[in-house]
Amino acid sequence: MATVPLIDYEVASPEVKAVFDDIKHVRNIPDVNNFWKALANHPDILQRTWSTLQEVMRPGALDALTKELLYLAVSITNSCDYCIHSHTAAAFAKGMTQAQYQELLAVVGMAHQTNALSTGMKIPVDPQFLASTAKES
Amino acid sequence: MATVPLIDYEVASPEVKAVFDDIKHVRNIPDVNNFWKALANHPDILQRTWSTLQEVMRPGALDALTKELLYLAVSITNSCDYCIHSHTAAAFAKGMTQAQYQELLAVVGMAHQTNALSTGMKIPVDPQFLASTAKES
Amino acid sequence: MATVPLIDYEVASPEVKAVFDDIKHVRNIPDVNNFWKALANHPDILQRTWSTLQEVMRPGALDALTKELLYLAVSITNSCDYCIHSHTAAAFAKGMTQAQYQELLAVVGMAHQTNALSTGMKIPVDPQFLASTAKES
Amino acid sequence: MATVPLIDYEVASPEVKAVFDDIKHVRNIPDVNNFWKALANHPDILQRTWSTLQEVMRPGALDALTKELLYLAVSITNSCDYCIHSHTAAAFAKGMTQAQYQELLAVVGMAHQTNALSTGMKIPVDPQFLASTAKES
Amino acid sequence: MATVPLIDYEVASPEVKAVFDDIKHVRNIPDVNNFWKALANHPDILQRTWSTLQEVMRPGALDALTKELLYLAVSITNSCDYCIHSHTAAAFAKGMTQAQYQELLAVVGMAHQTNALSTGMKIPVDPQFLASTAKES
Amino acid sequence: MATVPLIDYEVASPEVKAVFDDIKHVRNIPDVNNFWKALANHPDILQRTWSTLQEVMRPGALDALTKELLYLAVSITNSCDYCIHSHTAAAFAKGMTQAQYQELLAVVGMAHQTNALSTGMKIPVDPQFLASTAKES
Repeated sequence: MATVPLIDYEVASPEVKAVFDDIKHVRNIPDVNNFWKALANHPDILQRTWSTLQEVMRPGALDALTKELLYLAVSITNSCDYCIHSHTAAAFAKGMTQAQYQELLAVVGMAHQTNALSTGMKIPVDPQFLASTAKES
Repeated sequence: MATVPLIDYEVASPEVKAVFDDIKHVRNIPDVNNFWKALANHPDILQRTWSTLQEVMRPGALDALTKELLYLAVSITNSCDYCIHSHTAAAFAKGMTQAQYQELLAVVGMAHQTNALSTGMKIPVDPQFLASTAKES
Repeated sequence: MATVPLIDYEVASPEVKAVFDDIKHVRNIPDVNNFWKALANHPDILQRTWSTLQEVMRPGALDALTKELLYLAVSITNSCDYCIHSHTAAAFAKGMTQAQYQELLAVVGMAHQTNALSTGMKIPVDPQFLASTAKES
Repeated sequence: MATVPLIDYEVASPEVKAVFDDIKHVRNIPDVNNFWKALANHPDILQRTWSTLQEVMRPGALDALTKELLYLAVSITNSCDYCIHSHTAAAFAKGMTQAQYQELLAVVGMAHQTNALSTGMKIPVDPQFLASTAKES
Repeated sequence: MATVPLIDYEVASPEVKAVFDDIKHVRNIPDVNNFWKALANHPDILQRTWSTLQEVMRPGALDALTKELLYLAVSITNSCDYCIHSHTAAAFAKGMTQAQYQELLAVVGMAHQTNALSTGMKIPVDPQFLASTAKES
Repeated sequence: MATVPLIDYEVASPEVKAVFDDIKHVRNIPDVNNFWKALANHPDILQRTWSTLQEVMRPGALDALTKELLYLAVSITNSCDYCIHSHTAAAFAKGMTQAQYQELLAVVGMAHQTNALSTGMKIPVDPQFLASTAKES
């Protein structure tokens, strides 16, 4: 049960309805999902989040699916229940195959393990890694 | 300063040297980085981690760069200093462009924000997300 | 379902009953909430937690509502389901308005985003920040 | 050492300079801090982050200091080194007293402890907390 | 509801069945738990995880119960619902007493508190701690 | 550099000196470590933390070393730099062998991996785990 009411289209204010209409149009879906209905309690956050999300997730140097996979990997690492479900579904909708999903899980799991080992031993960063990122950037 | 000694090739045991040789050969580098020198304190972990990492990171349904980007996204989310530096360098070495890196950072940052909002409001998962993942799987 | 039995007042030991009575008296509530019933499995933790919580949360240089908002912000960041619900309710009970709640969520969300960006790029701390905190302290 | 170059005003592009000028003007500071110099590698993120941060942090239902304290609490919980230093300094600059800072630390520390206890025992949420937040919202 | 189907023994592939049989034999249980049924979607991860888990968790310099307690402490800290339940049950099965469980919770809770305080104040590491770990290792 | 001054014994208030004296006496050390010098900025937190830490860490159903290992495992998972160094040193001081340390790291690393896999797939908890913990408790 949410800590805020989920605001349905029918009872939304005109400014919220406008964002909902845009989401439905852009995504070609009959209704917005609960994330947006919850954000609608704060129209400023709703508007800003929708606007930013479109900018960030639009295909660019990284394609749409790769961005969705990254979003999912972060959501798993942050233990966000809602986000894991919504971004797993979104990744499948954007073409993620079952094989890709299994490999994503394997990479995420392995990263957690080596992250813990590196942090646990406080391993000093190799000079060549520092030089490399400085150069590449 | 690490909590364990970093074991250099010259003083390593034969079983550690064998793993180090394999890493140097596969990656075509003159010396292994500190992560492996730290793991060398526990030859079993060293052997297992190297073996698993190769399996997990080899190109498959996801290509090598995408896997590296996912690894980096998880490492940032886990605040692992060593891993952030080493996997940023690795991603550049595998062809990540500066534009891709900037987009990765934007996606990771945005995911953190919406993860926090979703978790903070305890938004219930939409039935279609549950159905979608069940079907796709 | 909890990993421990929730101990109700009726079946509690005298020392647990004494803490429960104090909680009910101080908070003017008919029964303690599940957190305390769970802690009652370890009377030492129960006693210590209740005692410390009163000291920490009593109005001082920060007022009671501000402390509750901070508690909620940490609970969201730690993804603690029980704590998000209980401290959101507590904040409302202490006078948090819906507008304040929405602004808290916006700040928490934004902090997560810039935390991730700062950590991801390993940005070095500006000397003036170090000097400032040293001076102020 | 950052994974990106820190872009100084002198070498910045006109669009980055415009944002830097605005930050310096609004905050009345002679130079922007490293966070902005790092973001300047991606002018879109720079512009968006500065714009959103101003909206989110401007005094509203919560005053500027309370928002800064919340930002700091989240930054501590996320173990973000840069953010802890910059937001501790910012909170002092906005009037946080040493006594308030100590109480903030006490609340953050206590929240971490009870978050861990609640999560560890998987304590079920009391019905009155769910009802309370639904009603209040 | 899982994001993947849980694969039951009856419908599993021969290679999955072989791992399931080994788990059932080693643990002397009539059926594998859901973790393994979920991993069975990716036979490579299933095989590797089972193999590694046996190596890591077998009694060595640390006994089986101590390892299980450590696993539980990490699972609580990572807010992993499934893992908290499964490893609490496993610890009880390996002989954890109720008193030991309560002390584990107390230590985990206290560690979270002092972790937050230390991180929040960015306390510099004492030279003797660095020297000690270097020497001991 | 800490965000607070580290308060040395010579300049401490009488109440802080009393706690420092007790720490030095109980631990048989010539000076307290930086954690306590930082906490000394808030004598209430100092007193309470020292008092609680002694209660929590004293040998009971779990011995002193096992408690220290749990503390270290949590500190690694929370990425607390200071705590990783201080509790690694403390564990060695309490008798942790190098072999035990390596096994602890292996368990912590493996737990992180399976935590991520379980969270990522949202695996439902098996009924027998719920029944087991309810019964045992």
